[in-house]
Amino acid sequence: MASWLPIPSKSHFSLANIPFGIISTSAEPTHRPAIAIGQHVLDLSAFAQNNGFSKLADFPADQLKVFSQATLNDFAALGRPVHRATRAYLQDIFRQETPYPEILKDNESLRNQALIPIGDIQSHLPLSIGDYTDFFAGRNHAHTVGTLFRGAANALQPNYNHLPVAYHGRASSVVVSGTPLHRPWGQVLPNPQAKEPVFQPCARLDIELELGMFISKGNKLGAPVDVNNAEEYIFGYVLMNDWSARDIQQWDPWVVLADALEGFRGKGLENEIPPKKYLAEKREDSILDINLEVSITTAKGNKTKITQVSSQNLLWSWPQMIAHHSVSGCNLRTGDLLGSGTISGLEPGTQGSLLEQTMGGKQFVKLEGGEERKFIQDGDSITITGWSGSAEDGLVGFGECEGTIIAAVPRD
Amino acid sequence: MASWLPIPSKSHFSLANIPFGIISTSAEPTHRPAIAIGQHVLDLSAFAQNNGFSKLADFPADQLKVFSQATLNDFAALGRPVHRATRAYLQDIFRQETPYPEILKDNESLRNQALIPIGDIQSHLPLSIGDYTDFFAGRNHAHTVGTLFRGAANALQPNYNHLPVAYHGRASSVVVSGTPLHRPWGQVLPNPQAKEPVFQPCARLDIELELGMFISKGNKLGAPVDVNNAEEYIFGYVLMNDWSARDIQQWDPWVVLADALEGFRGKGLENEIPPKKYLAEKREDSILDINLEVSITTAKGNKTKITQVSSQNLLWSWPQMIAHHSVSGCNLRTGDLLGSGTISGLEPGTQGSLLEQTMGGKQFVKLEGGEERKFIQDGDSITITGWSGSAEDGLVGFGECEGTIIAAVPRD
Repeated sequence: MASWLPIPSKSHFSLANIPFGIISTSAEPTHRPAIAIGQHVLDLSAFAQNNGFSKLADFPADQLKVFSQATLNDFAALGRPVHRATRAYLQDIFRQETPYPEILKDNESLRNQALIPIGDIQSHLPLSIGDYTDFFAGRNHAHTVGTLFRGAANALQPNYNHLPVAYHGRASSVVVSGTPLHRPWGQVLPNPQAKEPVFQPCARLDIELELGMFISKGNKLGAPVDVNNAEEYIFGYVLMNDWSARDIQQWDPWVVLADALEGFRGKGLENEIPPKKYLAEKREDSILDINLEVSITTAKGNKTKITQVSSQNLLWSWPQMIAHHSVSGCNLRTGDLLGSGTISGLEPGTQGSLLEQTMGGKQFVKLEGGEERKFIQDGDSITITGWSGSAEDGLVGFGECEGTIIAAVPRD
Repeated sequence: MASWLPIPSKSHFSLANIPFGIISTSAEPTHRPAIAIGQHVLDLSAFAQNNGFSKLADFPADQLKVFSQATLNDFAALGRPVHRATRAYLQDIFRQETPYPEILKDNESLRNQALIPIGDIQSHLPLSIGDYTDFFAGRNHAHTVGTLFRGAANALQPNYNHLPVAYHGRASSVVVSGTPLHRPWGQVLPNPQAKEPVFQPCARLDIELELGMFISKGNKLGAPVDVNNAEEYIFGYVLMNDWSARDIQQWDPWVVLADALEGFRGKGLENEIPPKKYLAEKREDSILDINLEVSITTAKGNKTKITQVSSQNLLWSWPQMIAHHSVSGCNLRTGDLLGSGTISGLEPGTQGSLLEQTMGGKQFVKLEGGEERKFIQDGDSITITGWSGSAEDGLVGFGECEGTIIAAVPRD
C-alpha cells in the first residue's frame, strides 16, 4: 500500500497501521487526538474541523466532537465498527491513489495545518484509565519465576491453568513513555532471616515486558462478556513496561487498533487443561503475533538488546482475559487497561525481566562495553519496541516505550 | 446548635454534620451537589445560582461552578480550608439566629426551590473514583481471620505491625447504597482435597463493615505525603460494605466531611512495634471514634442487629495509610477512595463479618424469628449505620448503607 506522503519503509507507522494517540504542540498546547503516519502525525482535531471526515459515511454525524476531546475515551466508546471504518477511511486519505484527493493530498492549506512532523509533538496518555488489571498470562515467565521461588515441582500455582490469574493495579500509576522515574523507597527485609524491616531505596528494581490492551465499550455490572464476542470490546494495544518494585506502568503513546493487528495472529502456549465453557474459544488463532524487543542503555551510553521474543508466549488470549474478568459480573469500562503479564520465552535472551535473565539475581547479564547488570541501576534507560508484518507490506509497530531510572529522592 | 429548620433530635444530619452528596430529582434529573440537613437536602446548584454563597468570603470567587458539577471532585480538590469554610457558612445559614436571614431563612422562593424533602431525591456516587485501595487496618479482624486460616501462632503476617497492609480494588466496583446485587459466579474448589475447580455461584457470600475515606487533593508522582500533614489530604468519610466474594463495595451516599468528625477522635489499638519515622504521628488521637452497627433483614422480614462496634478498633490511622500509600512515590488523586479494612472487636456481637461471627462457617449466627445464618442467603438485606456525638449536641451520622443480595443470574 503506497502513500502520496513519503513513509520510510522501516517506519512502524505504515499505511497498514494508523495508530491513535493524544498530542499537543508548543504552538497549540491543547491535548487532542492524532494518528501517526510515517514521520508525521495527522492532527485529527484540525482535520475534523476542516471537513476532513466529510467523505466518511460510516460515522455517526453528531459524534465528530470525539476528535476534539483531550482523550480517546469517547472515540473508543463508539465501538469497533466505527474504529474500523475510521481507520479504513484514513488509509484511503493517505493512499497514493486516494479517492478523495481534495480532502488532504491536494489541500495544501489543511496539510500545513494538520500534518505535523512527529518530532514536533508531545505525546500524552491516550485514554483516561478507569481501572488497570494486570494479568499473568505469560506462562513461561510464571514458570521460571515460580521455580525460583518455590522450586520446579510447585512452579505454577494450582489455579494457573484453570483461569487467567490477574492482580489489580493503580490507574494513577500509568505514565507515558519518556517519563523519568526516581528509584522508590520502601520497607524491605535486609536478608531472609531478618525480623526487622528497614526503610531504604529499592535494590532490586526490575523491568517487565508486557502488552497492554484498552477496553472500548464496557459491560454492565452483572452482565458478563461472552468469550466469543469479547473482541468487540477491544479498542487497541500498547507496549508496556511494568517497572516492578516501582508499581509504575510505562507505555508507548500510540494505541495500535485491534483491526490493525487482525492479520497477525496464531496459537499461544498449549494448555493441557480443557478450559471451562465460559473460557472456550471457537477461533484457534486468538493470540497476537508481535515481535518484541527490550534494550538497556547505560549511563555510559552502551546500548544492548537483552530480549527478543514473540508475543505468542501467552497461555491466555485477550478475549479469555475479558471473559474471565467479567464472569463474576464485574463491569469493565471504556478506557480500562488490561496488561498481559510479563512475556518471556524459556531460552536465554528471550526473557522479559531481569529476574529471569539473572536467575533471581544469581548471575550477570552481559552488556556492551564490558558492563553487566543484575538489576536496574540509576541512569539506566530501558527501551521496549515491537512490530508485526514486513517492510514490504508495511510494518504495524508500536514505536518505542522508553524510561530512565534516576536516583532515589533523598530522605531522612 | 438550634436551627430554624425543624431537625429531629435523632437525625444523623444535624447542624453539627452537613454531609455532602450528589442528588437528582424526578423534576430535575441532572446530577448535582447537595448537603443533607435533617429531613431535607439543600440543592447546592440552585443555592449557588441564587446567590446563596454571596456572604461566604473565604471561597474562591471563580470556583462557584463546582456546585453545578455532577460529582464532588472539583469541590474536593479545592482543599480542606475551603471545605471547612463552606461547612461553617452553611451551618450559619441554617442556624436559628443566622447572621444572613435574607439568604434562605426569610427567602421563601429559594427555600421552595432549593430545600427538598430527603425522600424525594435520588442519591448517586458522590465522587468519580480514580483508584480504590482497601487497607486491612482492623487488627482484630486480621487476627481472628488469620487464626482461622493459619492458627493463632501465625495469625498476623510478619509485616502486619510494621506497615498498613492494603490491596488494590476496582474503582468500577463501587456502587451506592440501595443497589441490589446478584450472587456472583466463580471457579471454586468444591472441597480442600479437590484437584478440579467447579464453576458455580458463590456459596460463602459475606459482608465486611468498613469505613471509606475520599482524597481531596492529590500528591505528585514521586512526592510522598508527610504523615503529620496527611489530614490536609482528606475530604471526608463514608460507611462501606465490602461484599466479599463479590468484590463490590457499597456505601452510603453522604460524605461526612473530615471537619465534622474533628471532635470525635481517640486512640486506636496499641502497636507494640515502634513505627518507622515516616509513619510516626505527633498527635495521639488520630483514630476516629464512630459507633458502627450492622443489621441483617431476611427475606421473611426479620431484622437483627448482628454487630455493634467502635471504629477505634483500628491499628493504623488514615494519615498513616496516606503516608504509607505515597511513600514509594505513588500519586494519590482527588476522588481516590481508601478503605479501612473490616472493623471488628474481639467479643461476640462486635465482629464486622460473618466469617468471624461464625468461626469460619462452623457455627450459626442466631437471628430474630428463629432464623440463623452462616453466610448471606438470597433475599437478605444488609444495613450498615454509624454516628458520632449525642442527640443533645447533634448527631454526626452517615445515614444508612443498604444492599440486598438477589439470586445468581442463571448460566449454562
